[in-house]
Amino acid sequence: MDECIFCEIVAGKAPVSLVYADDQVSAFLVLHPVTPGHLLVIPNEHFVFLADLPSGLAEHMLGVGMRLAAALRSSGMRCEGINLYVADGESAGQEVFHHHLHVIPRWAGDGFAVSASAWDNPRPSREDLDRNAGTIRSALDSLPTERQVGSARMSANM
Amino acid sequence: MDECIFCEIVAGKAPVSLVYADDQVSAFLVLHPVTPGHLLVIPNEHFVFLADLPSGLAEHMLGVGMRLAAALRSSGMRCEGINLYVADGESAGQEVFHHHLHVIPRWAGDGFAVSASAWDNPRPSREDLDRNAGTIRSALDSLPTERQVGSARMSANM
Repeated sequence: MDECIFCEIVAGKAPVSLVYADDQVSAFLVLHPVTPGHLLVIPNEHFVFLADLPSGLAEHMLGVGMRLAAALRSSGMRCEGINLYVADGESAGQEVFHHHLHVIPRWAGDGFAVSASAWDNPRPSREDLDRNAGTIRSALDSLPTERQVGSARMSANM
Repeated sequence: MDECIFCEIVAGKAPVSLVYADDQVSAFLVLHPVTPGHLLVIPNEHFVFLADLPSGLAEHMLGVGMRLAAALRSSGMRCEGINLYVADGESAGQEVFHHHLHVIPRWAGDGFAVSASAWDNPRPSREDLDRNAGTIRSALDSLPTERQVGSARMSANM
């Protein structure tokens, strides 16, 4: 815990260029931005993954992220569009293991790009898509209900 | 409106491999996925941009996206991590102008990559970061309150 840079920021022990804070979340400028104005929204408490967040916290982070997106658009800084981005897990590109939401101002020709080798493959057939949809629907039906998940998370965090 | 492929999907007029639907949102498999299992969550009603959504709808979309992320992780399909991604505006990579949230299963070596030419530049100085933070905080302070924004959006949509 005491080696988490985001926890150090929340505790006031590391330098930060803060744009917003409340009792649940903080938002600040990234040190190595995609574009100037690139922000992170983080929970003040240390949660590693999306599934670790207590009920409602991800939604509050998003609400703050949307306000920040609106602020970036009206700030006079360069911003023609916005990306919201979460990397949940090392295989998804997560580098700091304290959950965070990226809010990234974008403009045409800003040099940011996403690529996927799968885009060179033939598109999946409708049969493939339907089979995958069935697999995901079955997994969704087998999840605990939202309230049960929330309770389980809450007790795990206590 | 009647040329929007997502509106056609919601109306049952275009083929879709659906995984979830309620009275506000629908979720289905992407035709050109980053990885198998790549999903979109969309509002059933046609809203173009993030700022067009009525109060609470983005949060509901995220809640559904988080449930789908959990389902992907437990489905048996390949999924070591998850990206959540929103492209808001053409300059941010938005290609279908009906707001949508990407939910992308990820694994090490899946071929998906993000790059930014700014990452080759020197990192911004603390003075640069603080100046940008001040600009964004001022813009944030000048935004209408959340309730006023919600009301403005609601009346604009009626």
